[in-house]
Amino acid sequence: MKPDYVSIFDTSLRDGEQAPGASMTSAEKLEVARALARLGVDVIEAGFPAASPDDLAAVQAIAAEVGQAPGAGRPQAEPPIICGLARCTRGDIDAAWQGVRGAQRPRIHTFLATSDLHLKHKLCLTREEMTAKAVEMVAYARSLCADVEFSPEDAGRSDPEFLYKVLAAVIKAGATTLNIPDTVGYTMPDEFGALIAGIIKHTPGARDVIISVHCHDDLGLAVANSLAGLRAGARQAEVTVNGIGERAGNASLEEVVMAIRTRGAKLGLQTGIDTTQLCRISKLVSRSTSYPVPPNKAIVGGNAFAHEAGIHQDGIIKNALTYEIMRPQDVGATHTMLVLGKHSGRAAFAKRLAELGYALEGDALLKAFHEFKKLADRKKSVQDADLIALASDERATVPELWALEHLQVMCGTTGLPTATVRLRDPDGKSRTHAAIGTGPVDASYKAIDAIVNLPVELLEFGISAVTEGIDALAEATVRVRHEEQRAAHGHGADTDIVVAAAKAYVASLNQVLSRQPSGPAQHPQKAGTPSEIST
Amino acid sequence: MKPDYVSIFDTSLRDGEQAPGASMTSAEKLEVARALARLGVDVIEAGFPAASPDDLAAVQAIAAEVGQAPGAGRPQAEPPIICGLARCTRGDIDAAWQGVRGAQRPRIHTFLATSDLHLKHKLCLTREEMTAKAVEMVAYARSLCADVEFSPEDAGRSDPEFLYKVLAAVIKAGATTLNIPDTVGYTMPDEFGALIAGIIKHTPGARDVIISVHCHDDLGLAVANSLAGLRAGARQAEVTVNGIGERAGNASLEEVVMAIRTRGAKLGLQTGIDTTQLCRISKLVSRSTSYPVPPNKAIVGGNAFAHEAGIHQDGIIKNALTYEIMRPQDVGATHTMLVLGKHSGRAAFAKRLAELGYALEGDALLKAFHEFKKLADRKKSVQDADLIALASDERATVPELWALEHLQVMCGTTGLPTATVRLRDPDGKSRTHAAIGTGPVDASYKAIDAIVNLPVELLEFGISAVTEGIDALAEATVRVRHEEQRAAHGHGADTDIVVAAAKAYVASLNQVLSRQPSGPAQHPQKAGTPSEIST
Repeated sequence: MKPDYVSIFDTSLRDGEQAPGASMTSAEKLEVARALARLGVDVIEAGFPAASPDDLAAVQAIAAEVGQAPGAGRPQAEPPIICGLARCTRGDIDAAWQGVRGAQRPRIHTFLATSDLHLKHKLCLTREEMTAKAVEMVAYARSLCADVEFSPEDAGRSDPEFLYKVLAAVIKAGATTLNIPDTVGYTMPDEFGALIAGIIKHTPGARDVIISVHCHDDLGLAVANSLAGLRAGARQAEVTVNGIGERAGNASLEEVVMAIRTRGAKLGLQTGIDTTQLCRISKLVSRSTSYPVPPNKAIVGGNAFAHEAGIHQDGIIKNALTYEIMRPQDVGATHTMLVLGKHSGRAAFAKRLAELGYALEGDALLKAFHEFKKLADRKKSVQDADLIALASDERATVPELWALEHLQVMCGTTGLPTATVRLRDPDGKSRTHAAIGTGPVDASYKAIDAIVNLPVELLEFGISAVTEGIDALAEATVRVRHEEQRAAHGHGADTDIVVAAAKAYVASLNQVLSRQPSGPAQHPQKAGTPSEIST
Repeated sequence: MKPDYVSIFDTSLRDGEQAPGASMTSAEKLEVARALARLGVDVIEAGFPAASPDDLAAVQAIAAEVGQAPGAGRPQAEPPIICGLARCTRGDIDAAWQGVRGAQRPRIHTFLATSDLHLKHKLCLTREEMTAKAVEMVAYARSLCADVEFSPEDAGRSDPEFLYKVLAAVIKAGATTLNIPDTVGYTMPDEFGALIAGIIKHTPGARDVIISVHCHDDLGLAVANSLAGLRAGARQAEVTVNGIGERAGNASLEEVVMAIRTRGAKLGLQTGIDTTQLCRISKLVSRSTSYPVPPNKAIVGGNAFAHEAGIHQDGIIKNALTYEIMRPQDVGATHTMLVLGKHSGRAAFAKRLAELGYALEGDALLKAFHEFKKLADRKKSVQDADLIALASDERATVPELWALEHLQVMCGTTGLPTATVRLRDPDGKSRTHAAIGTGPVDASYKAIDAIVNLPVELLEFGISAVTEGIDALAEATVRVRHEEQRAAHGHGADTDIVVAAAKAYVASLNQVLSRQPSGPAQHPQKAGTPSEIST
């Protein structure tokens, strides 16, 4: 590997997915992993296998597919390294190994805090006990897997002298990558650069392993800190798409990569990323997590290359370099193109979906194609964004336990908004209910609640037009929480926003039900009497 | 002033408002300016008066009110400096002076590019011509106003030696603040820090004026660059709320301020900002510009202080310091509180609105109070966010030329979505139309279009639930463009999302019509035949 090459370690599926409400289904994680492989990331942290059987299964699926054959379009010949996170315990490390061992290039990533604050208040360990545990667990991980990464959590607030000792000991025990996290996003770039430089200088064996940076954005400095660490000698950057992650999130992949690309000569760094895929993967992750990308987001925001002020437009017309340091096409920020029309066949439809990162098959493909034909009849031009919305809606991410068969709504400025809903239950029977609400969506949700009878708290509700023009598809996203579980979310796309909202709600309830430990057949359920009115 | 004091210069109303689609009405600008004064910013750049008569009027209104008496709650005794932007021409400088002269502490800010790229490709000026023009115009501005700021545009890519000469010359001509912009967001923190240090060291007179930083976020480094410049001796930071601005936006006010507050001891810096108002002003600016704040936005994002992962929650419970470097209450990120119920009176309602930054009076207040009573009847708890939505909807930002009198809609999974709309026209007459669409919103918009007959392109459409639970208010935002004009936007709030969407659309059309140069009475208009069906 060239000395200036920076490995891009994407943790969207682990640290990103840890963000409140950003949870993805296994199918969504697999789709994002495929897109990350095509993008050219060197390492995919696919999850935290000890967290739950679902997490383990998702990591295994990614290791088996993306970790074996990354598919067409990947800039590198080798598949990405597939990494699983583990606390410093045998159980976690065993689970991580179960998760990643199916990959061609597996990695176990284990961590233990080194700051006195964490040792005293969270772990109740002395420095000596911490060191012994880290050494023992790194050696154990190494006995399973040739590629072991160790992270001293809260390194940014740890005593540097102690850090050097711990790191030297874990290198001896077999660690091949040392990741230095600024866990709480507290450091300034010069401090973080000095921390990395100090580690490389004072830790015996540090020059024989890869030093990695992992920065959080609590003070808006994650990208600057990552670059400072890389300039000080680190050669792996842990990042997430759109900067998702705990609290204010992680350093954003697209910003770190484009800073290196744009200022590579000054920084003396390069990456293996195909930057023209950045906008596409940003949209995929935004959709999968329901985290919006604001127009003023660097690199991938809708306005990152837009120029409204007359002065700037004038400059741009005279010479794009006056206000642009990157070209829109470098990051894939081209206008959505008309790709398919009403005469397009199923093969062309499936091919374009695959190019967009959606591998639909069988019934899901047929259903999406049917929806596409309906849309093409109503809408002059079907754009990529429409296709993505259809595919997101139709892909079988969770079992469709309940399905929306029929919805009819009356509403307006006067009168009582009323909705009649017919759902197909998990046994295939139709159940109908009508309800009155404060608006058409409230009425529909009340009718659905009366049928499904699963108490959830509605955390978030949003509707957006997917493409330009109001005759385009509307996409609804809802986030709900059942009891103390993790938030579930659902999408629905339709030209009718009330129908989209009802589809999204049913999808979110299906996600909650499919997570029930007793299995989907055992969910709480009470049939509504057909045509009964509730308020 | 203390040597470590950093003046916070907010340019949300100028550089922020320049972002595509972020345009605010004069009333919205005045509200944001009031909130900025309460927050404690030192300088408000209120606009670019030469851009249009509307821009000039907005700056004048802010100068007259906020620039004279900032109202209760401002940490400083003096009102903020009110600043207007001007190119280096007499016309622009005259307009800027007209805009700001009504303030107690007016400032004119003029700029001219110094990079060879801009001189050659945009301005067609030699270095000597540029210097002469800058000196002449700074002297002219100084003849009108004692406080003059000069910006060498694209300083980040200018020849430092030439920059020192230009800056020395404008100091002699009377400039009191020198603002150094990284116009295209290209520099790295160490480069930008070195640029500022070089200017202070090599420019005769630089120590007698204030050096300012103005950084853009194209590579995600705006905050880091701003801090690097301040550490090198700059003492004014030009920032925007939520980091809005051209392309990827400016350095974000909340991040720069909280980095200084959290790491003040290391940085040797302080500001006069009341940080407990940060979340509130973030919401106000987000609403006024329709730019969303993603959950993972540092400081003001919904998750900035949220901890979902079990490991982190465990740490937080044991000791908040393990994962928090700031407290939620420091930035005003407390839960929305139940403040008003159905028995609250108008005075309490108006008082709470004023605290939230909405000064409604007369009819607008009465109308909002009426809507509040209706809401309190339907909804168990009325929260701050509900009140803000009501106030945003009802405040008289644009003349209500057309008003939604009645809407009735039928839609669902089968049948043709149909909407019947009655609007009151500018002359007070009712006009009715029915239309069929692809969904209830499309049908409503088609019916409205048939009545108003103003061709617009729909750029963006979004609906969100304002507070938790679907029985809360839904708020719709639309952005439209008429011919080649700047984008207009409209809000609508209602418990019925179709009604909210229709209100928002009518509001956006009213904004377009109120901008027509020939005045609102002359807008294109064709009455629809009552009950006529169109598709």
